[in-house]
Amino acid sequence: MKNSPRPKSSQPIPPHAKKVFEGVVFDVYQWEQKLYDGTTTTFEKLVQADTVTVFPVLDDGRILLLEQEQPGRDPFISTTGGHVDPGEEILAAAKRELLEESGYEAEEYIPWLILQPLSKIDWVINIFIAKGLKKVSGMQLDGGEKIILKPVTFDEFLEYGTREEFVEKEVARRLLEAKIDPAKMAELRRLFSPSR
Amino acid sequence: MKNSPRPKSSQPIPPHAKKVFEGVVFDVYQWEQKLYDGTTTTFEKLVQADTVTVFPVLDDGRILLLEQEQPGRDPFISTTGGHVDPGEEILAAAKRELLEESGYEAEEYIPWLILQPLSKIDWVINIFIAKGLKKVSGMQLDGGEKIILKPVTFDEFLEYGTREEFVEKEVARRLLEAKIDPAKMAELRRLFSPSR
Repeated sequence: MKNSPRPKSSQPIPPHAKKVFEGVVFDVYQWEQKLYDGTTTTFEKLVQADTVTVFPVLDDGRILLLEQEQPGRDPFISTTGGHVDPGEEILAAAKRELLEESGYEAEEYIPWLILQPLSKIDWVINIFIAKGLKKVSGMQLDGGEKIILKPVTFDEFLEYGTREEFVEKEVARRLLEAKIDPAKMAELRRLFSPSR
Repeated sequence: MKNSPRPKSSQPIPPHAKKVFEGVVFDVYQWEQKLYDGTTTTFEKLVQADTVTVFPVLDDGRILLLEQEQPGRDPFISTTGGHVDPGEEILAAAKRELLEESGYEAEEYIPWLILQPLSKIDWVINIFIAKGLKKVSGMQLDGGEKIILKPVTFDEFLEYGTREEFVEKEVARRLLEAKIDPAKMAELRRLFSPSR
């Protein structure tokens, strides 16, 4: 995983782009882009910190989802995860977020998806499946999080994961694809089985 | 359609937020948010112009997709659409984008989906099905667009619309859901049939 290249955006920020704003979540870059007719115009794109998402699979086969509230936001369903800190290894961020949000440590982290979901934001999501879980502490939440742990069976995961309020849209898509294609469903079951 | 309320974000920008950056595509807003533990922190969210997407259904039942290139971006599949100009009615924007990108006018615009897909960007997409089409001109593209019109059958639409390079992800989701649920598939066929 450490050596996986960071996936390229479908619309990369070119080297000559200038950072025109630095925010608390988003930085804004602009550059002069030559168009097909020879004219130029200003293009704009955002950068935000990459994120990790970790789906914990308990030894009894249940998958740990999170019912989550944040101030000023509708309640949503997710799993453990968050931003990669500056300079932090991706796997270290995955371990930290799993521990902070669930109190679990894992023996194995299986990289599942690594992709840039949006063309207008430079942002990579790294999605892991964690197995061999051991509860080592309580949750260590910050003041902007309210989290209820929600262990679900694989079949319940297929249902919750395709609801509107489930925020991992790239995962929702793969659950829907698995419901259509038996080979993909078998692969998904294998991926989310507790055996290693 | 004119009277449809603009759907609220799942994480609205509060009235006391300040615009801290104004870009060519994105504006950035910040506000002090009180957290659950009584402390406050700076929250940040983006605003971009709302967009329209128009799926033209030709009288022979084919749906008009677009194979599109933009400078510095991987080729992608979409349909007609673009930004709503400041002060422009949503339906007027739909008519303008359909005409500019395909040279067609339509007798009927059926509102299909109106939603805010992302929690971190205040941005509404308005998706229409257009029927009763008449070719009235050529395309009027700007220097940043290369477009090939690609009429496809309904079954081909189900295939193209669920590929990775199809950019309307909310539509892709509904096509996948229709492949799973016969009632949703029947509704989708009705919606995309040329009859009015």
